[in-house]
Amino acid sequence: MNYLLVLKLIGFVLKTEAALMLLPLAVSFIYGAGDGIYFIYTAIPLFIIGHCLNSIKPKKNNFRAREGFVTVSLTWIVMSLFGALPFYMSGCFNSFIDCFFETVSGFTTTGSTILSNVEALSKGLLFWRSFTHWIGGMGVLVFVLAIMPNTGGSAIQLLRAESPGPSPGKFVPKIKETSKILYMIYFCMTAIQVVLLLISGLPLYDSLITAMGSAGTGGFSNMNLSIGAYGNAAAEMITAVFMLLFGVNFSMYYYILNRQFGLVKSNEELKLYVTIVLSAIILIAANIMPLYGNSILQSFRYSIFQVASIVTTTGYSTADFHVWPMFSKAILMTLMVIGACAGSTGGGVKVSRLMILIKAARREIGMIIHPRRIQTVKADGETLDNGILVNVLVFLGLYAIIAFIATIIISIDGYDFETTATAVLAVLGNIGPGFSLVGPMGNFGIFSGFSKLVLSFCMLAGRLEIFPMLILFSPRVWRNRAI
Amino acid sequence: MNYLLVLKLIGFVLKTEAALMLLPLAVSFIYGAGDGIYFIYTAIPLFIIGHCLNSIKPKKNNFRAREGFVTVSLTWIVMSLFGALPFYMSGCFNSFIDCFFETVSGFTTTGSTILSNVEALSKGLLFWRSFTHWIGGMGVLVFVLAIMPNTGGSAIQLLRAESPGPSPGKFVPKIKETSKILYMIYFCMTAIQVVLLLISGLPLYDSLITAMGSAGTGGFSNMNLSIGAYGNAAAEMITAVFMLLFGVNFSMYYYILNRQFGLVKSNEELKLYVTIVLSAIILIAANIMPLYGNSILQSFRYSIFQVASIVTTTGYSTADFHVWPMFSKAILMTLMVIGACAGSTGGGVKVSRLMILIKAARREIGMIIHPRRIQTVKADGETLDNGILVNVLVFLGLYAIIAFIATIIISIDGYDFETTATAVLAVLGNIGPGFSLVGPMGNFGIFSGFSKLVLSFCMLAGRLEIFPMLILFSPRVWRNRAI
Repeated sequence: MNYLLVLKLIGFVLKTEAALMLLPLAVSFIYGAGDGIYFIYTAIPLFIIGHCLNSIKPKKNNFRAREGFVTVSLTWIVMSLFGALPFYMSGCFNSFIDCFFETVSGFTTTGSTILSNVEALSKGLLFWRSFTHWIGGMGVLVFVLAIMPNTGGSAIQLLRAESPGPSPGKFVPKIKETSKILYMIYFCMTAIQVVLLLISGLPLYDSLITAMGSAGTGGFSNMNLSIGAYGNAAAEMITAVFMLLFGVNFSMYYYILNRQFGLVKSNEELKLYVTIVLSAIILIAANIMPLYGNSILQSFRYSIFQVASIVTTTGYSTADFHVWPMFSKAILMTLMVIGACAGSTGGGVKVSRLMILIKAARREIGMIIHPRRIQTVKADGETLDNGILVNVLVFLGLYAIIAFIATIIISIDGYDFETTATAVLAVLGNIGPGFSLVGPMGNFGIFSGFSKLVLSFCMLAGRLEIFPMLILFSPRVWRNRAI
Repeated sequence: MNYLLVLKLIGFVLKTEAALMLLPLAVSFIYGAGDGIYFIYTAIPLFIIGHCLNSIKPKKNNFRAREGFVTVSLTWIVMSLFGALPFYMSGCFNSFIDCFFETVSGFTTTGSTILSNVEALSKGLLFWRSFTHWIGGMGVLVFVLAIMPNTGGSAIQLLRAESPGPSPGKFVPKIKETSKILYMIYFCMTAIQVVLLLISGLPLYDSLITAMGSAGTGGFSNMNLSIGAYGNAAAEMITAVFMLLFGVNFSMYYYILNRQFGLVKSNEELKLYVTIVLSAIILIAANIMPLYGNSILQSFRYSIFQVASIVTTTGYSTADFHVWPMFSKAILMTLMVIGACAGSTGGGVKVSRLMILIKAARREIGMIIHPRRIQTVKADGETLDNGILVNVLVFLGLYAIIAFIATIIISIDGYDFETTATAVLAVLGNIGPGFSLVGPMGNFGIFSGFSKLVLSFCMLAGRLEIFPMLILFSPRVWRNRAI
């Protein structure tokens, strides 16, 4: 392990984080929130520490996959520890663990909160809370790669470890440009959503918060009743559409910019994503209709919003879906696990992995029927060999194992079955709210400190696609042999 | 598809089923239960139909994997339809679907019942109900293979489709002998349990019922309070030990008979199974101690029994574990999914698949750390290639997909989250009781007819390891080309 180079990279990220804190600081001054001082007190030491670490001169410059994975996971942990400081200084949270949980929930775009009264938080802190979603959505290291002076061989390893989905993207050869393009698309889409929300009648501050939460598919809102607080159907539909758009693989937008519409139309993951979304919307709308006075319009309004919010793993709500019939809840729970498309800002296991699983299953059945025929699994025209299939399927298996282990651990707190099970699914999939006590009207403050740390681990494991977090526990990775 | 040969084989199984009904008929006469007539009315037409089908002379004798899988799944369905007739004629059930559910639950060794008052059933019917566990535990076709006059090339395909676990056993070359040996071991172990239960003080009838339910890891009891009704600690511990023994791969007993003790000691699945069982017993005993007056003896008594019952997917109970703390319930739920060893009579995804998943995950992490080193996944000294890994992992993925789809469908009935989710896990893993309304003190009678059919499908999919049931839905398998 090339420790020095890992530390140097972490240092660069910390410097960047310090710089990013200037934005909530500015917001604090503009709105006279009086919480700017917390950002100053955090950013200055953060910058100094980051600068010192970044000044390290490693003896060797070799940067392999293991350094990439370790850098990514450690960066996310350290970044969350420092990001929690403004919350801690404000005194609005009960403990530092609560602040850490909230920040991890922000960066990983989970959106689970431990606060029962979000509206009590000052405007600078609320902005920072939602800004972490926006930063974490596209990935901190993707951002760093876009601005870092000398990436060298480290770039591809970092991108591989941080990007969501089974394939590390097709633009890898030109990483610096790719990162810039991705962030440009991300920025422009967020800006368009802000403008549309302003037109729909939302104040600027609320538009910014809502758009950042949608873009990162995070789900932190500045209102206790989430988006439902506005009672603004136009804002709800704008947000629903943008959540769904941010749940699409960003390669699609790159194709559209390049006028490669054929590639978008033929994309298999996108087709399955649209199919899942439309089916869920229709089934839930039909199921909840009696709850909304049999109004087709009202039931579709709530169904569209909630399906978009859950499948993209955002977690905004306009209704207390915990009180919906079990059929709707079972569909939402399934969407929680599936999640959005690979290469989007959404979480879950990703639609593409589900697709690969189904195709692999079809082949296994095909091989029983025609044992001597050579049968391959293809995705978007490319053949996936057994090695790739094993990797994708192992991911799914690990996802389940982590869910079961985390459920057992947090069940020590003794909450009911529904709360316990869906709390884990909600954090592991980076959704935000679950059902029952952690439903849209509840919060995660009920759990013990230890459970909050376990749930924070799940959020990080979900966002970083498990392997970077698991590798931290492998003694082999820490051996210094063969630097 | 060689339809004629498939029908011929099904005919042979039906004839066998008719013959097996002589046993409950005898029990009925011995105990003067007055329900013998139902078995006579069923067995006679069953034998005639079976004989007619078995008299078919297929033009060709080719029997491939697809015929094996289709024969197995259709056999189990048809066998359950006929097996349900005595229940239906008795008038003790509300509908034929209820009888079918109960019979599928019996043959698949699930043990979920739709009856609220089991003790109201007459002794012949109760015996038949538990006898289906004993038949289904080792597999009907394994039995048929042992007695069938001319197996030919069909044997290996049938065994492959019916035996539980990822590998079809190592004794495949001599199938007829193997089937006989397996059934001999099975019979002797059951007999020993009956004798021990008699010594512990249980009546003969109850000893037979309890032993058949343990041997098949089924869980139907003749008492409403299950094994807890006897209040007999010795009988409980005997049953617990035998459930655990029936959850072990039967190859181990074959090795012991051959004095190959080294193979037993080094078996990796067995080690993991023992580790899981011991850990669960200790954790649960510690957790439930306050419920049992802080008595170490009492809490271990209930913990040992319930862990043995759930991990082997039997489903007997001595306590209403639904009221246990959430921590114990979370552990039990995890055991429900893991299940017993491959090649045992137990259900679930099997310990060996969990082991293979963990090993494959370790290799994926190893490949990040040492990308250029060749790394293989080994189980008991044999290298598992990627093709086998894909098969095992796809199984796990399909298990999850079926669980989610079934949960969505039965959620239409509108029961609570815990009932709905654990009902599916309990039938898919062939356990029996779940939590809440389908807990050890509840029953599955609450569900709609349609849900009962879906749950029956899950039981069959769980017992037959998914692929034989899924293949029925593949249009490719029904094409008559290339008979």
